[in-house]
Amino acid sequence: MNAVEIIAKKRDGGKLSRGEIGVFINLYVSGKIPDYQMSAFLMAVFFRGMDFEETGWLTEIMLDSGEKVTFQKPDNIYVDKHSTGGVGDKVSLILAPLAASCGIKVPMLSGRGLGYTGGTLDKLESIPGFRTDLSLKEFQDGVERVGCVISGQTASIAPADRLMYALRDVTGTVESIPLICGSILSKKFAAGPRGIVFDVKCGNGAFMKNEVSAEVLAENLIAVGKGMGRKVTALITDMNQPLGETVGNLLELVEAMDFLKGKQAPDLYGIILELSAEMLIVSGLRSDYDEAKILIKSKLEDGSAWSKFEEMVSYQRGDLSIFAKTSDLPQAAIVDTCKSSRSGWLTGMATEEIGRLIVELGGGRKTKESGIDRLVGFKFFKKIGDEIKSGEPLAEVHAGTREQAGMAIDRLKSIITIGPEPPEIPALIYRRLS
Amino acid sequence: MNAVEIIAKKRDGGKLSRGEIGVFINLYVSGKIPDYQMSAFLMAVFFRGMDFEETGWLTEIMLDSGEKVTFQKPDNIYVDKHSTGGVGDKVSLILAPLAASCGIKVPMLSGRGLGYTGGTLDKLESIPGFRTDLSLKEFQDGVERVGCVISGQTASIAPADRLMYALRDVTGTVESIPLICGSILSKKFAAGPRGIVFDVKCGNGAFMKNEVSAEVLAENLIAVGKGMGRKVTALITDMNQPLGETVGNLLELVEAMDFLKGKQAPDLYGIILELSAEMLIVSGLRSDYDEAKILIKSKLEDGSAWSKFEEMVSYQRGDLSIFAKTSDLPQAAIVDTCKSSRSGWLTGMATEEIGRLIVELGGGRKTKESGIDRLVGFKFFKKIGDEIKSGEPLAEVHAGTREQAGMAIDRLKSIITIGPEPPEIPALIYRRLS
Repeated sequence: MNAVEIIAKKRDGGKLSRGEIGVFINLYVSGKIPDYQMSAFLMAVFFRGMDFEETGWLTEIMLDSGEKVTFQKPDNIYVDKHSTGGVGDKVSLILAPLAASCGIKVPMLSGRGLGYTGGTLDKLESIPGFRTDLSLKEFQDGVERVGCVISGQTASIAPADRLMYALRDVTGTVESIPLICGSILSKKFAAGPRGIVFDVKCGNGAFMKNEVSAEVLAENLIAVGKGMGRKVTALITDMNQPLGETVGNLLELVEAMDFLKGKQAPDLYGIILELSAEMLIVSGLRSDYDEAKILIKSKLEDGSAWSKFEEMVSYQRGDLSIFAKTSDLPQAAIVDTCKSSRSGWLTGMATEEIGRLIVELGGGRKTKESGIDRLVGFKFFKKIGDEIKSGEPLAEVHAGTREQAGMAIDRLKSIITIGPEPPEIPALIYRRLS
Repeated sequence: MNAVEIIAKKRDGGKLSRGEIGVFINLYVSGKIPDYQMSAFLMAVFFRGMDFEETGWLTEIMLDSGEKVTFQKPDNIYVDKHSTGGVGDKVSLILAPLAASCGIKVPMLSGRGLGYTGGTLDKLESIPGFRTDLSLKEFQDGVERVGCVISGQTASIAPADRLMYALRDVTGTVESIPLICGSILSKKFAAGPRGIVFDVKCGNGAFMKNEVSAEVLAENLIAVGKGMGRKVTALITDMNQPLGETVGNLLELVEAMDFLKGKQAPDLYGIILELSAEMLIVSGLRSDYDEAKILIKSKLEDGSAWSKFEEMVSYQRGDLSIFAKTSDLPQAAIVDTCKSSRSGWLTGMATEEIGRLIVELGGGRKTKESGIDRLVGFKFFKKIGDEIKSGEPLAEVHAGTREQAGMAIDRLKSIITIGPEPPEIPALIYRRLS
């Protein structure tokens, strides 16, 4: 079968064989199928979809197009977590060392922020010297020795995904469940985990705006991951307001560190507890959620999780000394306060807009090549459902210039809506799927 | 709006504006939108379609991407005919001079055979010296002076279509009604006709295999053509067996010339009469079909149509002297007969297979660059519904070698099906649409 016949088969709703998907992807990676045939194929997949089996083959072929980590010990304790991306989502920074302190090995290959969602690597690079460019060997050694490593995907991992993702981005074929699944899973499984807990974000600050689409993605990730012989579960969690108190690279890093040291925003605490309990269940280290949570709380309280974070940072050559005294911390040129111009209840936050505002302030990337300003960001004082008095501070704005701070304060006033009645407070966790 | 946004708008089922289509096509033609974005766009159009208005804009933008003929006299007598392609379809060779002899001006820019359907230019080039590469100026002058010209599309005509068609061919996006419409109409209208009669072929030897799909194409061609201010009608005609008696370039040319001189296969005569009557109605030269047919028959009988053919050939530098004596005519090396191995009734012909067999014999193109052997072909002695005796000749096979002739005879025996009962004879013309 040639390339056009494979495109036409998918276009007409046919189920592709493993061989057909393999030929198409591998010839594309080797440059023998041109971009224009791949983009037509991607659009056909966008419209026709792929079943779980096809998606699994796609994922395996993408995974096998590059290098991957293979851990030596054949047990289940290599467990990763993956979030589909949100605003203020600093969960990975906390969860990796916390889970490692509970005995899980967390091989976490992470990405940078693009668009309105932040990236774990960008946050970690606020630590002077912190290396996110570990070789796969350094990555693997670190996971075995420290228990957790968070590093960037190397160029040798899933080149098929890298090429296809770049093409999807410019051909309107990003929003396809099987393509999203293949992209996520091929990169995640390249790091060698035996299990993954997915945090599928849902709401106005997530790619999945409603629960139905979040569930479809979660079901696909689970079915395909299981089909590939991995343990996979998913939580669908709320992203209708930033998670925790802060948004912005340095501010989020500091919040994550504070969390590990015991200062915990309630929503972030709730999410961390559930996700880390899931990881313990997936790993087989605990078989009961209550027992899992007892272990997790003890590792937070006795400082083990924080020590594990320090250990990971040290392994990755980061220097935490600037974080020892608040006065040593770098800070944006302007820190100003956004105050409410009316009284009422906080009824909603246009969360995606908060992420886009960070990009405008220079704290996120407009293109993959953009540099970023890690100091800009927001600290929010209120959550949905809180009562607000006119003149009360809603958020602290960290910006590079007075003009930008002013612009951000103006924009936040329309991003944060205040109504006359208390709203329904969104659930933190919508569903668990496995 | 940028390229990705336009792709995504169509992908999501949105109606594109004239400006959006214009930007996309024009930037593509100028190389600023790459093939991979165009192919994603084409696949999105394949799935989402375009309404008549969008298709009209698409057609106009493709038409305006190149040169076009503009006739000076603002009347309706410039009328062309276009067939969607079939096997043994030599109608254009007859219709152009016949219509011209009735007073119509026929500006016919035609194509070459590709795939299993023959091409009018290939047939005409069986005439020594015949030029199918007229400049647009020569083309326009010939239409005014002779009344009809059949020449090839120049590179300057609708470059957008040429680029897009090449891409559609390799990305599984050929079979899309709005894209087919845009491609046909942009090229046809570049020749300057005020009206077009479409012969939409329907059956096992046509692109449109069933009447529903043929009707959809005809309705689209008519609606878009009318939207562009042209007079357009269509006949849906049968293509479940070759039209007339012959298939193959030289054989079809000779049949067409014989037709103009008075030797007419009944099915071909029926089609020619209806299509030429349509052209007379569209041109306004006649307002009544019966009157139109009286004029057409007189022009066939008094030799005017044949004279017009000679005049056209002469204008295009062709030399008809080899056609004066049958013994002077070049002939394929082997002429053999395919005889029926059983008695019964001719119940069907796998018409597309006949076209593919011609290609295998060297009489059609496998790729656009292939040379062709104009001498190979078939002369069929029987039509669907004819009674057949065992041993009776079914067809004459003209081939380059004895092996090829033998192969063709074998294949024809399975292409022509003979059953024990007389079949239903397909109608010649299914429907008229306007």
